[in-house]
Amino acid sequence: TKRYTITLLPGDGIGPEVISVAKNVLQLAASFDGIEFGFKEMPVGGAALDLTGVPLPEDTLSEARNSDAVLLGAIGGYKWDNNEKHLKPETGLLQLREGLKVFANLRPASVLPQLVDASTLKKEVAEGVDLMVVRELTGGIYFGKPRGFGTNDSGDEIGFNTEVYAAYEIDRIAHIAFQTARKRSCRLCSVDKANVLEASMLWRKRVTAIASQYPDVELSHMYVDNAAMQLVRNPKQFDTIVTNNIFGDILSDEASMITGSIGMLPSASIGDSGPGLYEPIHGSAPDIAGMDKANPLATVLSAAMLLKYGLGEEKAAQRIELAVLDTLNRGFRTGDIYSAGNKLVGCKEMGEEVLKSV
Amino acid sequence: TKRYTITLLPGDGIGPEVISVAKNVLQLAASFDGIEFGFKEMPVGGAALDLTGVPLPEDTLSEARNSDAVLLGAIGGYKWDNNEKHLKPETGLLQLREGLKVFANLRPASVLPQLVDASTLKKEVAEGVDLMVVRELTGGIYFGKPRGFGTNDSGDEIGFNTEVYAAYEIDRIAHIAFQTARKRSCRLCSVDKANVLEASMLWRKRVTAIASQYPDVELSHMYVDNAAMQLVRNPKQFDTIVTNNIFGDILSDEASMITGSIGMLPSASIGDSGPGLYEPIHGSAPDIAGMDKANPLATVLSAAMLLKYGLGEEKAAQRIELAVLDTLNRGFRTGDIYSAGNKLVGCKEMGEEVLKSV
Ligand SMILES: CC(C)[C@H](C(=O)O)[C@@H](O)C(=O)O
Ligand SMILES: CC(C)[C@H](C(=O)O)[C@@H](O)C(=O)O
Repeated sequence: TKRYTITLLPGDGIGPEVISVAKNVLQLAASFDGIEFGFKEMPVGGAALDLTGVPLPEDTLSEARNSDAVLLGAIGGYKWDNNEKHLKPETGLLQLREGLKVFANLRPASVLPQLVDASTLKKEVAEGVDLMVVRELTGGIYFGKPRGFGTNDSGDEIGFNTEVYAAYEIDRIAHIAFQTARKRSCRLCSVDKANVLEASMLWRKRVTAIASQYPDVELSHMYVDNAAMQLVRNPKQFDTIVTNNIFGDILSDEASMITGSIGMLPSASIGDSGPGLYEPIHGSAPDIAGMDKANPLATVLSAAMLLKYGLGEEKAAQRIELAVLDTLNRGFRTGDIYSAGNKLVGCKEMGEEVLKSV
Repeated sequence: TKRYTITLLPGDGIGPEVISVAKNVLQLAASFDGIEFGFKEMPVGGAALDLTGVPLPEDTLSEARNSDAVLLGAIGGYKWDNNEKHLKPETGLLQLREGLKVFANLRPASVLPQLVDASTLKKEVAEGVDLMVVRELTGGIYFGKPRGFGTNDSGDEIGFNTEVYAAYEIDRIAHIAFQTARKRSCRLCSVDKANVLEASMLWRKRVTAIASQYPDVELSHMYVDNAAMQLVRNPKQFDTIVTNNIFGDILSDEASMITGSIGMLPSASIGDSGPGLYEPIHGSAPDIAGMDKANPLATVLSAAMLLKYGLGEEKAAQRIELAVLDTLNRGFRTGDIYSAGNKLVGCKEMGEEVLKSV
């Protein structure tokens, strides 16, 4: 038997519900390969604020660091929305990304044939979409300094942030992106605003330089405003997209909505070494929290990414992916992806059906 | 007779073709109200680079400043794509916006019943979309200092930009946005990233403060990643959106593509006083430049915005808008908006048909 330690971070809102489902699926799917897990649950986000006064307690970070992988539910809620910056649930998530040094965020967005009707895009535009956004996650304007508040020469209040990238930060995310594209259709589109921003000019220069090491991957460049349009016009033109932290935040959410089923979409955040962070791309959905209505499949699929990217357990990962497809084929749907003719189930029942399909 | 001086900036690519059509329509439509124009054509962008070595010659800026309004075609092209920053066509456009102090960019995106099929969104999602993005245009990361290149402590090359907003910059764009919303459905959504960025926290604080002066306008706030999703999920939820320069660049292009007919969409950039800048939101389309294939209607409708916002000539503006609708109703379509059963025409012929409808 192999043994892995997993840190579970349920977080806020629907987080605990979806994590509980994903944990069971992870355990069962891996058991067939003789894998055992030691799970440790720790607080983060609003839950941690209420418990300890900070959004990322030291214990949570050190536990996460010492584990083989981290599975997160969701963070945030109205209750903490007006907190000061260092006391926001979101700050806990940013500290976690920084603390784990997970600089590469992989966000697949694909339209499953079973769910093509869920997209607001016309069927012929949506069907077959299968793209991956590789978002830089620990740099850029999210972390750049100087940042803060001040006054200008006229005594007027100002708020400011710094978008900054160093060559090494661009190089390492570019390598991950080229390698990701290589495992897919070998097409990489780098998105920037190099017609205006110096940070983007360096981005384009470095990505172009790294490209020579991946002659089999076709590299193109696109401005971010055009990319936001092209995702709506013809999302199928994209295979792998690589971009900075803030553009990746915006474009990956846009891409996910194009699938129409963001309750289905997982993500993986990885670094050079050390445990990765796996989480659904959806939020904490405070309005349906505790009501057994959440779609747990994004978190279940995040557990599959954890097995694949975090532990190298591809077989167990595939077992989960197939179980999810089988459950959909058997007609089970949570409210967010429900369409006539299918069986409407809650979070727990969806979890039980996936377990049957494993 | 009233007389106005208009600076025409054809620019690059399809710019000259669409400007030539818009000029004729503007002239005819206004003549019914006894309005006469003095037109002066000046170079900008790549055209100016080739002619004078800079993307915005001083003469062009001073001519523009001394006129009553400025109508721009489009700028940019492959030829100048690898130019250094200060020699990029785009830099000329940014200098023009800064030089004219046009801090508010109004970008309507509406789906005309005649063109609802052009959208990649399902008919029931696209039809009836009618929103306005108010984008801050002379601040934020586009103009913030410090900016440039350097090396970090490890000797690694860095590229950096500053996202900065002063209270007065936010206040003045907020006023324009509230006033714009007031003329529409009285709903304003302010888009920011206040859960991460200090510049956005100040943005949200100021917009919220200004709101008390517009009790009849309903204000909401949305994070930019969510806004990028909501535009795809249900664009009809939006009436007026106000946001910063870079988020506005991305979201207004996304919104325009949702209509499916970006060849139709105009924009107005205005300041506190002095001439405004009116331009189609589409680019210079170098691939079809000079081929008489461009859709001139976005520029024609920009001329209508020029009459309305720039000269206060609402009647003449409406005359143009109605002429465009009438031309569409008579079945004339350029290639970008063509659908079976209509008459495919080129740029010039479309212009002649609009003139007939005026
Ligand atoms: C919650 C927020 C800080 C976060 C981000 O902006 O990175 C979220 O939107 C995401 O994309 O994971
Ligand atoms: C050409 C470019 C500098 C410009 C911008 O980013 O503002 C364009 O995309 C626009 O939106 O008008």
